[in-house]
Amino acid sequence: MRQYNIGILGGGQLGRLMLAQALGWPITSKVLDPETEAPAARLATQFVQGSLTDYQTVLDFGQDCQCLTIEIENVNVAALQALEAQGKTVIPSPRTIALIQDKCLQKQFYHQSGIPTADFVLLSDKTDLQKHLHRLPAVQKLAREGYDGRGVQILRTADELDKAFDAPSILEALADIRAEVAVLVARNTRGEVVSYPATEVVYHPEHNLVDYLLAPARIPEAVAARADALARRVAETMDFVGLLAVELFWTTDDQLWVNEVAPRPHNSGHHTIEANATSQYAQLLRVLLDLPLGSTDTLSIAAMVNLLGAEGHTGTPHIVGWEQAMQQYEGIHCHLYGKKITKPFRKMGHLTLLASSYEALYQRIAYVQSTIKVLSR
Amino acid sequence: MRQYNIGILGGGQLGRLMLAQALGWPITSKVLDPETEAPAARLATQFVQGSLTDYQTVLDFGQDCQCLTIEIENVNVAALQALEAQGKTVIPSPRTIALIQDKCLQKQFYHQSGIPTADFVLLSDKTDLQKHLHRLPAVQKLAREGYDGRGVQILRTADELDKAFDAPSILEALADIRAEVAVLVARNTRGEVVSYPATEVVYHPEHNLVDYLLAPARIPEAVAARADALARRVAETMDFVGLLAVELFWTTDDQLWVNEVAPRPHNSGHHTIEANATSQYAQLLRVLLDLPLGSTDTLSIAAMVNLLGAEGHTGTPHIVGWEQAMQQYEGIHCHLYGKKITKPFRKMGHLTLLASSYEALYQRIAYVQSTIKVLSR
Repeated sequence: MRQYNIGILGGGQLGRLMLAQALGWPITSKVLDPETEAPAARLATQFVQGSLTDYQTVLDFGQDCQCLTIEIENVNVAALQALEAQGKTVIPSPRTIALIQDKCLQKQFYHQSGIPTADFVLLSDKTDLQKHLHRLPAVQKLAREGYDGRGVQILRTADELDKAFDAPSILEALADIRAEVAVLVARNTRGEVVSYPATEVVYHPEHNLVDYLLAPARIPEAVAARADALARRVAETMDFVGLLAVELFWTTDDQLWVNEVAPRPHNSGHHTIEANATSQYAQLLRVLLDLPLGSTDTLSIAAMVNLLGAEGHTGTPHIVGWEQAMQQYEGIHCHLYGKKITKPFRKMGHLTLLASSYEALYQRIAYVQSTIKVLSR
Repeated sequence: MRQYNIGILGGGQLGRLMLAQALGWPITSKVLDPETEAPAARLATQFVQGSLTDYQTVLDFGQDCQCLTIEIENVNVAALQALEAQGKTVIPSPRTIALIQDKCLQKQFYHQSGIPTADFVLLSDKTDLQKHLHRLPAVQKLAREGYDGRGVQILRTADELDKAFDAPSILEALADIRAEVAVLVARNTRGEVVSYPATEVVYHPEHNLVDYLLAPARIPEAVAARADALARRVAETMDFVGLLAVELFWTTDDQLWVNEVAPRPHNSGHHTIEANATSQYAQLLRVLLDLPLGSTDTLSIAAMVNLLGAEGHTGTPHIVGWEQAMQQYEGIHCHLYGKKITKPFRKMGHLTLLASSYEALYQRIAYVQSTIKVLSR
């Protein structure tokens, strides 16, 4: 076989979980990240400290890789294009990364492709808002570098204009959401596609981060089938290769709108490590290595609960309650990311909960959320 | 919770696979091994190079651990006893390690406890054999440090006495074996016990190493139940705490004999990573941390195939055929151990194969054995 040296741009938890899935595979890996203590650094065959957005750094990093991928969108696309031109496999393609990393371009793409999405206008800066006050209340989303709830805010009335982002952004109609679902699609270079059963993402009412996630989503089968078809359509219309997480709104009037996509492993697929025949991480590696796509069959219903740094705690993390939860319930799988410093709401890890019914899952979600905390020493 | 620092004596593949299962757990780990590039070294929070059999080295190693375990029997038991006397949790207990690491003591234990085992005599050295020539053909096993087929040989006639081991050993009746099975038992400090469905170990006819393993074993249910009961009886009679792999012979006259036991994760439990609700590695960690024992339910039938270094190849390993096998079949899980040097018959990794029928498993076993090779560059 070819000897694969896989380069991953980004050394966060998604890279770490990907490398953990491939510990025993006959491949080598290298990771680029600005932080020397990045979660994925220890699991890579080689770690390189450097900027993900610097052209020369990314170009140099990729020289001894056969294939490259990303675990964060905010990377230097021009360097990836140059690497692709050198004949390296870059998955996802620089073209799709560029499209997705700019929410304005992404949104225009949906509009032009007839893919249902919330009604919107593009704003160059804050002053543009004046022309669109009739659209409030609405959601303003920064075109670039929004992540994990950053760069997204609701503007309710004209009185709130002072807090508006003063940069290229989208002003988008507030969806009347019945449920938010996500569908992970994997597509390989031959155009073969598999998708995971739709998952349901439940946000925390206050801090706009995922509170927990249910897999499969508790939505009617017909809705799940429509969500699946729509997610596959997005991947195919983009001619996307790799792993695409498609976030969808299911509205109260029974429409499905694409919210946004991520061209990489995603929070909404963490549970696939335990709950599906092939994890999202192994699936992406299969695409990279040009192996057949793996089965996405569900082995167990599951929930995913983020372990966020507790409010009022900054410093060396100290996990409490895990032992107690493990005493209480079976089927709790803990994934800490090995971050050296906890901060309020920082993603320090996640739990996958398996159970034989949704009722049992809800019980476990409530229990672990009230019991397991990431404090600091 | 208490902050656990787990010490593992031995840094081989069993330690590596154990640490891989605990990558996201809120624990720290340290590993002791004479080899700086031991397979488990990179996954441990801390690695210490040193002798496993040196009293002071083991004693020093354990000072900052809350609990200690082993992944190889050949360790300094006196040092573990001293650590236990200091109040540290040592699992398995030094007493049972001492019993098991000497095959003569182990065999006498079975005899005295009424546990069925092949008829035997103890030999002090080669000259003792003269008195027992009427027992040939028989198996001679070294009392100490036999491992992976080393220290075990068949003596067929008195003509072969020159090759006999000249050291404390057992001379044991040749069993007329219908199948060799193994049962993994986990027992915690409260005496709670779980066991994994019996597995069937198929040896390679020539080099006396495991050729492949089937899980569950293809034996009648009643025999599996007897094997399970016998394995549990061994663990309970030893008052064993930890993970005990009980190797059994099912004879042609329908008897079950205990062959020998290993007080640690075992080759015959590799498949539990993919094929059971709780892997043997996670199970041992549960015992160490005093968590409830995990479910041993079978999720899929499985086979385990060792990846041994190919004959005629010594040097930097180079895996061939994996990609081809992954193209051919689903359900192939590769676990290379990260060893830097391959040698003929060295255990370089294993494959777990999952399928929905034994027939499909046999097909896959044959395919991977003829396709995947560990060569050297």
